[in-house]
Amino acid sequence: MSHNIFGHLFRVTTWGESHGPALGCVIDGCPPGLPLTPEDIQVWLDRRRPGQGKFVTQRQEPDAVRILSGVFEDDRTGGPVTTGTPISLMIENVDQRSKDYSEIAQAFRPGHADYAYFAKYGVRDYRGGGRASARETAARVAAGAVARKVLGPGVAIRAALVQIGPDAVDRGRWDWAEVERNGFWCPDPATVEVWERRLEAVRKAGSSIGAVIEVEATGVPAGWGAPIYGKLDAELASALMSINAAKGVEIGEGFASAALSGEENADEMRPGADGPLFLSNHAGGVLGGISTGQSVVARVAFKPTSSILAPRRSINEAGEAIEVRTKGRHDPCVGIRAAPVVEAMVACVLADAFLRHRGQVGDKVAAASNARAIDD
Amino acid sequence: MSHNIFGHLFRVTTWGESHGPALGCVIDGCPPGLPLTPEDIQVWLDRRRPGQGKFVTQRQEPDAVRILSGVFEDDRTGGPVTTGTPISLMIENVDQRSKDYSEIAQAFRPGHADYAYFAKYGVRDYRGGGRASARETAARVAAGAVARKVLGPGVAIRAALVQIGPDAVDRGRWDWAEVERNGFWCPDPATVEVWERRLEAVRKAGSSIGAVIEVEATGVPAGWGAPIYGKLDAELASALMSINAAKGVEIGEGFASAALSGEENADEMRPGADGPLFLSNHAGGVLGGISTGQSVVARVAFKPTSSILAPRRSINEAGEAIEVRTKGRHDPCVGIRAAPVVEAMVACVLADAFLRHRGQVGDKVAAASNARAIDD
Amino acid sequence: MSHNIFGHLFRVTTWGESHGPALGCVIDGCPPGLPLTPEDIQVWLDRRRPGQGKFVTQRQEPDAVRILSGVFEDDRTGGPVTTGTPISLMIENVDQRSKDYSEIAQAFRPGHADYAYFAKYGVRDYRGGGRASARETAARVAAGAVARKVLGPGVAIRAALVQIGPDAVDRGRWDWAEVERNGFWCPDPATVEVWERRLEAVRKAGSSIGAVIEVEATGVPAGWGAPIYGKLDAELASALMSINAAKGVEIGEGFASAALSGEENADEMRPGADGPLFLSNHAGGVLGGISTGQSVVARVAFKPTSSILAPRRSINEAGEAIEVRTKGRHDPCVGIRAAPVVEAMVACVLADAFLRHRGQVGDKVAAASNARAIDD
Amino acid sequence: MSHNIFGHLFRVTTWGESHGPALGCVIDGCPPGLPLTPEDIQVWLDRRRPGQGKFVTQRQEPDAVRILSGVFEDDRTGGPVTTGTPISLMIENVDQRSKDYSEIAQAFRPGHADYAYFAKYGVRDYRGGGRASARETAARVAAGAVARKVLGPGVAIRAALVQIGPDAVDRGRWDWAEVERNGFWCPDPATVEVWERRLEAVRKAGSSIGAVIEVEATGVPAGWGAPIYGKLDAELASALMSINAAKGVEIGEGFASAALSGEENADEMRPGADGPLFLSNHAGGVLGGISTGQSVVARVAFKPTSSILAPRRSINEAGEAIEVRTKGRHDPCVGIRAAPVVEAMVACVLADAFLRHRGQVGDKVAAASNARAIDD
Repeated sequence: MSHNIFGHLFRVTTWGESHGPALGCVIDGCPPGLPLTPEDIQVWLDRRRPGQGKFVTQRQEPDAVRILSGVFEDDRTGGPVTTGTPISLMIENVDQRSKDYSEIAQAFRPGHADYAYFAKYGVRDYRGGGRASARETAARVAAGAVARKVLGPGVAIRAALVQIGPDAVDRGRWDWAEVERNGFWCPDPATVEVWERRLEAVRKAGSSIGAVIEVEATGVPAGWGAPIYGKLDAELASALMSINAAKGVEIGEGFASAALSGEENADEMRPGADGPLFLSNHAGGVLGGISTGQSVVARVAFKPTSSILAPRRSINEAGEAIEVRTKGRHDPCVGIRAAPVVEAMVACVLADAFLRHRGQVGDKVAAASNARAIDD
Repeated sequence: MSHNIFGHLFRVTTWGESHGPALGCVIDGCPPGLPLTPEDIQVWLDRRRPGQGKFVTQRQEPDAVRILSGVFEDDRTGGPVTTGTPISLMIENVDQRSKDYSEIAQAFRPGHADYAYFAKYGVRDYRGGGRASARETAARVAAGAVARKVLGPGVAIRAALVQIGPDAVDRGRWDWAEVERNGFWCPDPATVEVWERRLEAVRKAGSSIGAVIEVEATGVPAGWGAPIYGKLDAELASALMSINAAKGVEIGEGFASAALSGEENADEMRPGADGPLFLSNHAGGVLGGISTGQSVVARVAFKPTSSILAPRRSINEAGEAIEVRTKGRHDPCVGIRAAPVVEAMVACVLADAFLRHRGQVGDKVAAASNARAIDD
Repeated sequence: MSHNIFGHLFRVTTWGESHGPALGCVIDGCPPGLPLTPEDIQVWLDRRRPGQGKFVTQRQEPDAVRILSGVFEDDRTGGPVTTGTPISLMIENVDQRSKDYSEIAQAFRPGHADYAYFAKYGVRDYRGGGRASARETAARVAAGAVARKVLGPGVAIRAALVQIGPDAVDRGRWDWAEVERNGFWCPDPATVEVWERRLEAVRKAGSSIGAVIEVEATGVPAGWGAPIYGKLDAELASALMSINAAKGVEIGEGFASAALSGEENADEMRPGADGPLFLSNHAGGVLGGISTGQSVVARVAFKPTSSILAPRRSINEAGEAIEVRTKGRHDPCVGIRAAPVVEAMVACVLADAFLRHRGQVGDKVAAASNARAIDD
Repeated sequence: MSHNIFGHLFRVTTWGESHGPALGCVIDGCPPGLPLTPEDIQVWLDRRRPGQGKFVTQRQEPDAVRILSGVFEDDRTGGPVTTGTPISLMIENVDQRSKDYSEIAQAFRPGHADYAYFAKYGVRDYRGGGRASARETAARVAAGAVARKVLGPGVAIRAALVQIGPDAVDRGRWDWAEVERNGFWCPDPATVEVWERRLEAVRKAGSSIGAVIEVEATGVPAGWGAPIYGKLDAELASALMSINAAKGVEIGEGFASAALSGEENADEMRPGADGPLFLSNHAGGVLGGISTGQSVVARVAFKPTSSILAPRRSINEAGEAIEVRTKGRHDPCVGIRAAPVVEAMVACVLADAFLRHRGQVGDKVAAASNARAIDD
């Protein structure tokens, strides 16, 4: 990961500001021959799209994606497939309303990247947070859609909100199907109402609130990840921490593992049909930086939206004391819209890990190694 | 970060197994002209060295570092300075006792990387965990010593244990001086005794326990970090998660920020002498992936040591059910010895961020940008 | 350089096919605060544009560039400047005429990348060579325009054709002003007529011909380049060899140096006003992979255009013997239009080397080191 | 390629100075399970070793390589195999004679990297050229030996000198077996005597002379190389140009292709047993940056050794005019000893290209794609 590019063999470059003409990404190194249409990408973008509920920003962006390169009709099927060359995806910005931001052109909003960008670059696009806007995450979601194609149907990645403010879901009531039914990606039907009440209060107060997202990838075979510094969990940590407003990442038991004993924590194994049968998954599917074949599980903490109506003390570019109230259209809880982004980043990391693993050991060795654990 | 190399301009490659002849690192891209002697590095290695207390492994390794390249006498001072070429550092393994590990040659120890390495590579150096051993972290500490030279005395990095098992320090009694006085890197004198009792019990039970480390870097100027995917916090997350046994990383308020309101979380600013004066540091010194000039604060969760005497169910390379008891010399709490490693990784990330920032904006622009925030 | 991305700190990703809707590039890591308008880029694209003479392809492309991100109004001057975030540039394809290529959809044209792409990816965009088309070089030229902004007016880069087919220029008549006067980038007025006659004959024969381009960068200070594997000449070699149809690269005396004696080849030095005064430049401005302060000089050999009307034996995707005649609109000598591309690649390499050098040693050290050579 | 690291998946970091205690390399990303002993590497180092003839330096270095990591006994064969973790190789310097160099501590030798290193870094290890010494190439040769293991016996790489000074071999008499019989890697027995006479004269005159090496890799399947900027020929150009004293690189017909017509240059194809049968190889086995299945052919030009006894005008660190005569032990023609280095660099580039190609398309797709060209 460096600057605006991440990945090693499956490499994603994103570009674009909140209020520029467009944003997009270029995916380099994608395997050839994968069927890919704009609709394959649009379905994921639509899940991230703003303007879909009263607790998300009212900015209306169709987020219609165009594929500008890297796809061509397959001479056998006639359908569009990836060609192995760079896939350029573009999403035009439509509903920008730049005038909303004129007030804050000289102000550093507390909790935002305003001051940091100014200190680094000496110039910044202040409209809607510019490059630091969550709109950039649309490009990640688009890339993630392609990454899912690389991973194939065997690997499933899904995220759920597990906490908003102080209210966590009851894991005993966890139901993945429920996640698709409510606007909060909440796996626990009983918690939905609690969150609604809290968010209503937060919205009325002109305030905002944080959240925690859990993501799970099933079907990841053992062997992905490249120790020591390209460990699968290290790459996930980096990818997830790079999402706007993320402040913490944990794998498997995460911070709770500090309080466990060695007996509790170390997942026992028994012989299984095609590899070890793990009796628990405190590790979150990663040991020594390499996938074990169990589900890969991670959680990301998101801070409250920094754009709030409540007045806050700050300074402006001239260094003068000011007071800031951020009007405009903002999500009271950025975590709610981050679930598709979290999924997309996990998809990209896994696609890259898959290709790198295949590069180092080859299809056959990989298959053989996996099998050997129980067949030898 | 890829495989065994991390960093972009300040680039560290590490190598070596627990029971091979030696381990080491190569640092590429180090600025020239920095005074550097083996002693400058040894002092940090000595802090990480095993065999220094009853709650750490009894393996006795002098960890004497040799500088094999990249340093030459300065023609003005006559003392050794970095030349800008690769700095190769080597530490010989002395106290290996490979026989301790013969029993586990075919076994996959639960919670270890044994199975994952085997599944990935089809072959593994099982002695002491091979490449996955915490001995590898000596190379990180050596690199971190050089990174501190790059950062200069203005940037101070120090870590403390804030939790062992369920017992957290009382932050009201925090005293950095205390960290150097006890064997636990504990900043709270009253907690030392609590931890001692717990560790004694853990050791007697043949068990192990997890921990949380907090690290703080002061003196980091505003502007370091390269959004979007090379964000300073994303790089820290990756670097810290890559440490053996790490399961979670958080920046500033971290997971606790999920429960905060926007007003609580967004650090207010007032005009200060040379830049903004922040009234709080929930952000942990990073906004939008760029340092703000506040202290950079992170925490890392470590799982309990997986090598425990208590018998655990597992399988072997032949896929048969076995029971594993890990004898040998092991730390009951790997977190205790991880503090210098955490510091070293933060130092390396910051040194790299510094050089990259300087590359993109130059000394003068950087200085000017920082100043402009209040002077314009 | 990897796949479709090159550079380290000044990083360029290009995308697009000859007959897709558009092509473009994303420049990551550009220093902030550089004035940049579409016109700054267009002027260079216009130099590369096809349809400007009878010896270049008749395809008519306006090559109008759009800046989609990374530029914003400076709050002091009001003019657009780079912000330090990714600069996305897009050029729409207008005059594609895909029907011209239907005949060769299944054919592998000799000398083209057709077969190689098919063998690698199993699928290919055959229209106009797809990704392998020289149209891709428009994106390079656009990136080069930004690179020139990074380098500033002190570094001048200019290319000239020095050979077409067997006919080389007479270096005794070299006149840089002449390069801008004829359609061949020819620095020797007397050779223009020779080349015209040869190209006329080549065109009539439905054939094509190769060429050699020389490029010179003046104003490059001593110290750029990163030995051992990121040597300035190695990076130039890679960048120039990556241009379509390039088959050879040489620095300074190049292949002719094989026949020199050590006395002839080693450029002698005398004390100069601000550094050494070199008495010759056989080295082409690079020693040990680092710039010396002399002009950086390189040459690139281009093979003849592979798209020719003359029939050639080949095979098709089904492996059957066929005969291929490439109709369509093609340059009889691709070298003629490559001069702006060569300049652009040199600009990108130098901009990247500049930023990396500044990152490692800093503005002040760099300045001091340069000065010290004579002032101490 | 960046600084002292090259390659993407098969990644080589080298370190060490001519007169430091040792030099070496770390190979990261090597596939696991490859048998590897020190002898496998030593055989290639012995071919590069100095002190083996009267026309090479008299410095006596055994160049004994140690494998410090990354290799372990295979549990099936008991022999040492690569484990997929970093392979650290070290060669100790034995015959350094640092006193030889005291005279030049303050001098910039014309044609050397002395001044350039000083201008870049402000400090340099002047002993024997420090990092810029050709001794560094021993590490490349060691890495190349491992790369050959990755490529397997199907890919054969061999180099020959084709020109010393103005004297080129007669290609009509080319005999690869002859290359192993004389001390010049000369494929033409009749030319050996010519070169001997010339080198004797050069040596007596205290002068030196340049050379050209040709390298050929057979058995490279179609599909390796990653366009656009990671083209196989671009990577070869970079790798070969990074060798000490290299000034030019060409692929296939190279600079001569400028004088060819399109009909001559474009290699015709006929149906073959397993892919196209090419009727010529002007392309040097690479089209569009991708291997075609033909032999990969490149040539590298080496300038004359800059260390000569003949006095040359120069300046010193103080900027004063001086005269330099380079005593010490030097090769009159560095090209002679570069043949094993050229082979090694080609091996490393190909191994990396192989792994990257496998990563992107997989074993099966690669195989299928290759076959499809004729089977469909």
